[in-house]
Amino acid sequence: MTARPQLATRNAVMRSSTLRDLVSVTTSPATTAPVAVLSLAGGLPPVEAFPAVTLGAAADRILSQGAGPALQYCPTEGDGQLLELIAADLTGRLGIPSPAGRTLVTAGAQQALDLVGKVLLDPGDVAVVEYPAYVGALRAFAAYQPDIVGVPVDDAGIDTERLAELLAAGLRPKLCYVVPNFSNPSGATMSAARRVRLAELARRYGFVVVEDDPYGQLRFAGHDVAPIVAGADPVDPVVYLGSFSKVVAPGLRVGYAVVPGWLMRPLVVAKQATDLNSSALAQRLVAELLADPDGFAAHVAGLVELYRLRARALLSALDRVLPRRMATRAPEGGMFAWASLLVPGVDATALSRVAMGRGVAIVPGDEFAVDGGFPTQVRLSFSILDPPRLVQAVERLGAAFDDLSTLDNLGGC
Amino acid sequence: MTARPQLATRNAVMRSSTLRDLVSVTTSPATTAPVAVLSLAGGLPPVEAFPAVTLGAAADRILSQGAGPALQYCPTEGDGQLLELIAADLTGRLGIPSPAGRTLVTAGAQQALDLVGKVLLDPGDVAVVEYPAYVGALRAFAAYQPDIVGVPVDDAGIDTERLAELLAAGLRPKLCYVVPNFSNPSGATMSAARRVRLAELARRYGFVVVEDDPYGQLRFAGHDVAPIVAGADPVDPVVYLGSFSKVVAPGLRVGYAVVPGWLMRPLVVAKQATDLNSSALAQRLVAELLADPDGFAAHVAGLVELYRLRARALLSALDRVLPRRMATRAPEGGMFAWASLLVPGVDATALSRVAMGRGVAIVPGDEFAVDGGFPTQVRLSFSILDPPRLVQAVERLGAAFDDLSTLDNLGGC
Repeated sequence: MTARPQLATRNAVMRSSTLRDLVSVTTSPATTAPVAVLSLAGGLPPVEAFPAVTLGAAADRILSQGAGPALQYCPTEGDGQLLELIAADLTGRLGIPSPAGRTLVTAGAQQALDLVGKVLLDPGDVAVVEYPAYVGALRAFAAYQPDIVGVPVDDAGIDTERLAELLAAGLRPKLCYVVPNFSNPSGATMSAARRVRLAELARRYGFVVVEDDPYGQLRFAGHDVAPIVAGADPVDPVVYLGSFSKVVAPGLRVGYAVVPGWLMRPLVVAKQATDLNSSALAQRLVAELLADPDGFAAHVAGLVELYRLRARALLSALDRVLPRRMATRAPEGGMFAWASLLVPGVDATALSRVAMGRGVAIVPGDEFAVDGGFPTQVRLSFSILDPPRLVQAVERLGAAFDDLSTLDNLGGC
Repeated sequence: MTARPQLATRNAVMRSSTLRDLVSVTTSPATTAPVAVLSLAGGLPPVEAFPAVTLGAAADRILSQGAGPALQYCPTEGDGQLLELIAADLTGRLGIPSPAGRTLVTAGAQQALDLVGKVLLDPGDVAVVEYPAYVGALRAFAAYQPDIVGVPVDDAGIDTERLAELLAAGLRPKLCYVVPNFSNPSGATMSAARRVRLAELARRYGFVVVEDDPYGQLRFAGHDVAPIVAGADPVDPVVYLGSFSKVVAPGLRVGYAVVPGWLMRPLVVAKQATDLNSSALAQRLVAELLADPDGFAAHVAGLVELYRLRARALLSALDRVLPRRMATRAPEGGMFAWASLLVPGVDATALSRVAMGRGVAIVPGDEFAVDGGFPTQVRLSFSILDPPRLVQAVERLGAAFDDLSTLDNLGGC
């Protein structure tokens, strides 16, 4: 007789991202849908945005000339040369004070979320997240069984006064998670005043601000706002997460965390137990790109232009096709627009189902909540499709709305 | 005033590997030691063993011709082509039944240890480990706060009858961790009979066997023994971990886990929350190598020959230089020899300190225990040094023994 081993209790709260499942369907070339699906769903950079040729040349240089260190284990903190280049970039571009010695390379910013959860969260601890929230943050933290408290986002990012009220009323979170620039999924950018306020609250109440900034370099409108960490002392409780997934390529899995000095050792210990170190080869490839600052800046400028054109195509098509059916927040950068459905009785889950039948994928807002919460909102990504196909996708969305109102009328018979 | 955030309780039991710190010292070119240190400490493959030229050509092919998928996100389970090649290899080479659909690519086997801990262990659960145990397994599991119970290893691997006694007396572990081939650190190979017995015990008592096999292809003496998983049904509680760190290169961070069907979904969910997926580029590079089975087999045969010569050089030097001072278990493969100190009053920690002064690094046995446990044993790695330098390292070790007996005599004055 075979006794079946029991799983750990945390499995009860760990869930797969249905969004990620959806993304994998809509990026598969072997779709069996009658019409090829146009995806406004995935938060992926498009393959044509990858610096493949530059990376190929870098790989050739690295591997042809004594590849030893690039193929060996490396320090858990990260490749020394890459850490120096990141520190120089963060000081020069963002004004982050003395990142050297308190920066850890991670397998994308996603791994940093897992590690931060691992070193900070006990079961029952409170984790505040901006709401709606990045699915991957919700999933990463869930493994450590916190109570997740969502604080709403408006046009200026997370509502810090609402958070202040909760804190004044006794809420004692271990961390507060925000994506201050062009957030996923809300597209919102946090105001300078709220950034300062959040850091104040964190110092006062003793929680860690987790400032996740994968999209910050992809600003195509408005003006840069200093990151929260730039105004913080190196011991202040602010963790800044950067990623090369959106500005180089996700397939390298290279991101990083800049952390207060006292948090460095626990995070390095956790990272060591988790995967020893991130790929030395992938780190060297990124270092080769960063070692040419002008070339890298030109590459990023190209990405900004690409997303500017795509955002404009999506938003103007929405204005034209769905003026009274959707209200969309225009983002200042990144990959996402957050839209509210204005047609009474039409909810996001129904719309996304009917839209898929019309050959366009969108993500219902509930995906970005813990247990429902955004029934009439959707996330629209403009990263994958080129402008003509973005227009076509919006027209299909219009047809899906038509389908729903027909259904509604029929239902009323 | 700044309130300092509290860390999670698990940080109290998570420790850095001092071994890994030692390894990083002794592999650094910029050592400040008066004599360049010869390392018998690190469990690293030597850089000259990496197929750098083959990988460089593969990178060129991948990145020059529409690199899209290799630079994009990929399924959490792993790159489809790599999974097919791994399944074919595991069925053909090891007789593992139907690995397809129950194999997950991980960031080295180390990440699989973390994920297995994450889905199986609640605080206070029992994790059995062969003893002495791989440090990285102890560190990975520690994050989930189990009680770790060591079961001794002898020349035939973990003592399964000792384990059976503990089980009969009421021990109820969630998992049992073993490295059946040329274990780290013991060098021991588990007998066929004990492998069968361990699987029986796992089925009967409802725990998961974690069969970690990073060195299995590096056999230079004796005969292959079928892995535990080869005799198990696809639903039996055996997790088999493989790695390309030792047969290709650690810098890629590509390993995998073959798991019982019912464990696949929880592990994929955990992996998704942890880092979304492993590097697609690194996976494609490994796939390019595996897609040429003859070329890959020739590469592995070269590695086997390299380690055969190094093991022989180390062991014959030990026989010659330290015949009455150390008793060493001759491994049948891998990278490690486990040695017992035979000089009364000489312990491993003192020896390793004095040896460092003589310019040779070794790892004291206590490193492979939870709280001490192998005070008169050391791990000697023969992977990094070539034969002449292995001989030189052993001569330095002889000088360190001389130093200790001199000290001892002085102490007796």
